[in-house]
Amino acid sequence: MKKERGLLIVLSGPSGVGKGTVCGALRKQDTDILYSVSATTRSPREGEIDGVNYFFKTRDDFEEMIKNDQLLEWAEYVGNFYGTPVDYVEKTLSEGKDIILEIEVQGALKVREKFAEGVFIFLMPPSLAELRNRIVNRGTETEDLINNRMTVAKDEIEMMDKYDYVVENDEVHLAVERIKAIVISEHCRKDRLIEKYQQLVEAE
Amino acid sequence: MKKERGLLIVLSGPSGVGKGTVCGALRKQDTDILYSVSATTRSPREGEIDGVNYFFKTRDDFEEMIKNDQLLEWAEYVGNFYGTPVDYVEKTLSEGKDIILEIEVQGALKVREKFAEGVFIFLMPPSLAELRNRIVNRGTETEDLINNRMTVAKDEIEMMDKYDYVVENDEVHLAVERIKAIVISEHCRKDRLIEKYQQLVEAE
Repeated sequence: MKKERGLLIVLSGPSGVGKGTVCGALRKQDTDILYSVSATTRSPREGEIDGVNYFFKTRDDFEEMIKNDQLLEWAEYVGNFYGTPVDYVEKTLSEGKDIILEIEVQGALKVREKFAEGVFIFLMPPSLAELRNRIVNRGTETEDLINNRMTVAKDEIEMMDKYDYVVENDEVHLAVERIKAIVISEHCRKDRLIEKYQQLVEAE
Repeated sequence: MKKERGLLIVLSGPSGVGKGTVCGALRKQDTDILYSVSATTRSPREGEIDGVNYFFKTRDDFEEMIKNDQLLEWAEYVGNFYGTPVDYVEKTLSEGKDIILEIEVQGALKVREKFAEGVFIFLMPPSLAELRNRIVNRGTETEDLINNRMTVAKDEIEMMDKYDYVVENDEVHLAVERIKAIVISEHCRKDRLIEKYQQLVEAE
């Protein structure tokens, strides 16, 4: 029987919505989902580990990866590069395992061009006021940068139309449950399974 | 904010696959899903209660309901009529509540014509051999009727293409978990939510 290919799950949403927190909470649960590690030129935040949270790269190294076509997508965002190394993603999917990418909105839209069959999840704040709170509370941004991020966020929310699912991040554990349900559900989609079951009928 | 309409979930699949068992197990769980009750002219099986498992009707009464357009769908199946009274379904959906219909394949396809936005789930046996076992073990059918049901089942499995999801009923609790995941996931589909979130951005 032909092996079912893994799901590429793309978790995205405006900066500050809590992608990292939700993805971190999902990781702590017992699922079979693997996690892609992005490359970035931004500085590590406290507690972030190279090769675990991100591959932290110099600008020169990152540009070399772009040139050699080693990135599934890359984008410049508020002055830094972010990108997804392609090798690990392809290998995981072809082994029939699911992999989740946690990436910025620009990057997600580029992945969509190459992986139309991916599962694209847009993480939403309960409100724009709450989004501003979260960015302010992170405490790493100046007032100007916060306003800049809010403007970008509003543009990004308009892009949810390009996604398959919208998950509200009202509470982290609820957002995690919704994402887990989406993954189970996508594995049951008829389009992904019909080949398998036609074999079952023909085998009779 | 405009009230989100409930989901119409249609659980179907070949006779003997375990629709009733799975639906019964789902009912015992703490979900917000309501259950439609079908009308039928077939005789009650042991333990089945009128108005709970089915509305048991005479052939005359059933034909009266057809004539008065009180059925969302109806079908004749192995000599009996089955149908879904339309009132309760419409009322439930417009109140924003989810409702599940457990119906035969013919009926499900008719519901699809009227409710294209419904969530159509096809319950699959792990194999055709296992399906035969289940029909035999039910102990209510003659050998001829079993063979008849198996022929119908194979034709019905070909119809899974008309469904959104295929759920394998390998173990009842697993099938129930998959159905619950599909319901959560469908509530997160962008197409169902985009209106709500556009209001959020415009409200700013």
